[in-house]
Amino acid sequence: MKKGVLIIISGPSGSGKGTVVKALPNNKDYALSISVTTRTPREGERDEVDYFFRTQEAFERMRDNDELLEHASFVGNFYGTPRFYVEQKINEGKTVVLEIEVNGALQVKEKYPDSVLIFLMPPSLNELKNRLIGRGTEDMDTIERRFKRAQDEITLIDQYDYLVVNDEVQNAVDKINLIVTAEQMKPKRSLHIINTFKGVV
Amino acid sequence: MKKGVLIIISGPSGSGKGTVVKALPNNKDYALSISVTTRTPREGERDEVDYFFRTQEAFERMRDNDELLEHASFVGNFYGTPRFYVEQKINEGKTVVLEIEVNGALQVKEKYPDSVLIFLMPPSLNELKNRLIGRGTEDMDTIERRFKRAQDEITLIDQYDYLVVNDEVQNAVDKINLIVTAEQMKPKRSLHIINTFKGVV
Repeated sequence: MKKGVLIIISGPSGSGKGTVVKALPNNKDYALSISVTTRTPREGERDEVDYFFRTQEAFERMRDNDELLEHASFVGNFYGTPRFYVEQKINEGKTVVLEIEVNGALQVKEKYPDSVLIFLMPPSLNELKNRLIGRGTEDMDTIERRFKRAQDEITLIDQYDYLVVNDEVQNAVDKINLIVTAEQMKPKRSLHIINTFKGVV
Repeated sequence: MKKGVLIIISGPSGSGKGTVVKALPNNKDYALSISVTTRTPREGERDEVDYFFRTQEAFERMRDNDELLEHASFVGNFYGTPRFYVEQKINEGKTVVLEIEVNGALQVKEKYPDSVLIFLMPPSLNELKNRLIGRGTEDMDTIERRFKRAQDEITLIDQYDYLVVNDEVQNAVDKINLIVTAEQMKPKRSLHIINTFKGVV
């Protein structure tokens, strides 16, 4: 059977990655990765749907047993990407989507070299600034800080497999679909085809 | 300016690579690579269109100066892929297409690591046999030898970047177009975009 692909989508604040990830055809061949967390569920959040909610002990055990593709802490809580869930979905032939910042993305690539790193970019620096300002929720200091950080992140781009310019959401989605189709033609993902040609005669 | 891509198409006898290469939109962004040869031009063949016709001395000079991406001899004549022509077309933003057997393809990849290796396959072993027999031009010994060789070539497939199944010519052409589009989103081929984001603020 055809194996799936793990795609990791990163991009600076203002690249629109949240919107693009939501617009990926979730019903088709895509599955969003589900994180493990030690934080308390919020109202309406369901275990194994929104997050895998785990105790700190259980989380640390997973981490120490190399069962997390990456992990990080945020205001006192731990978050991580469970390997078992990603592998399960990939074995089902799904395209697993992980939206994560650059450092986490590079951690995953190291632990799971078959993952495909996609860096989402706004069409220009001006457009990035406009998007950050346009939100109207941040003061100029925050905007400048994000802007600076975006430029730092862009220096890591050559460690990514693909660069997708997000000029319009649908274009970006089409490009990501196209990348997945191309990746599925890699020999390492086509063993089900290659094997039918081997040792048969 | 956007740089082009060198794609190398290989595949066993019966994979239909000749037909597929001819069907690639030659008028658009594609340019066929032109070989250097020491053989005498046949009637109607034009220098710098069909081949670069060169003396053996000139050929050997190119080879010794590392001006050939690969070379081979065939019934006493030499053939090679000139680096200057490939690079010129790539700098013009073209997708340069080189149809070549596996050993030559791997030689090119070594000298020109940015090249993209595409292995074209018939949909099945049976179909391969049918195509070889269907030509009606070869005796069974030749067919069996080609069949065996096809299987040998397939063992080299993990050194290729992509595997394209040629079930129908138009499908194979579409897949190759898609691979080229995906490859153009590689960061190393998107420097014209990345540079606009660097050191501007």
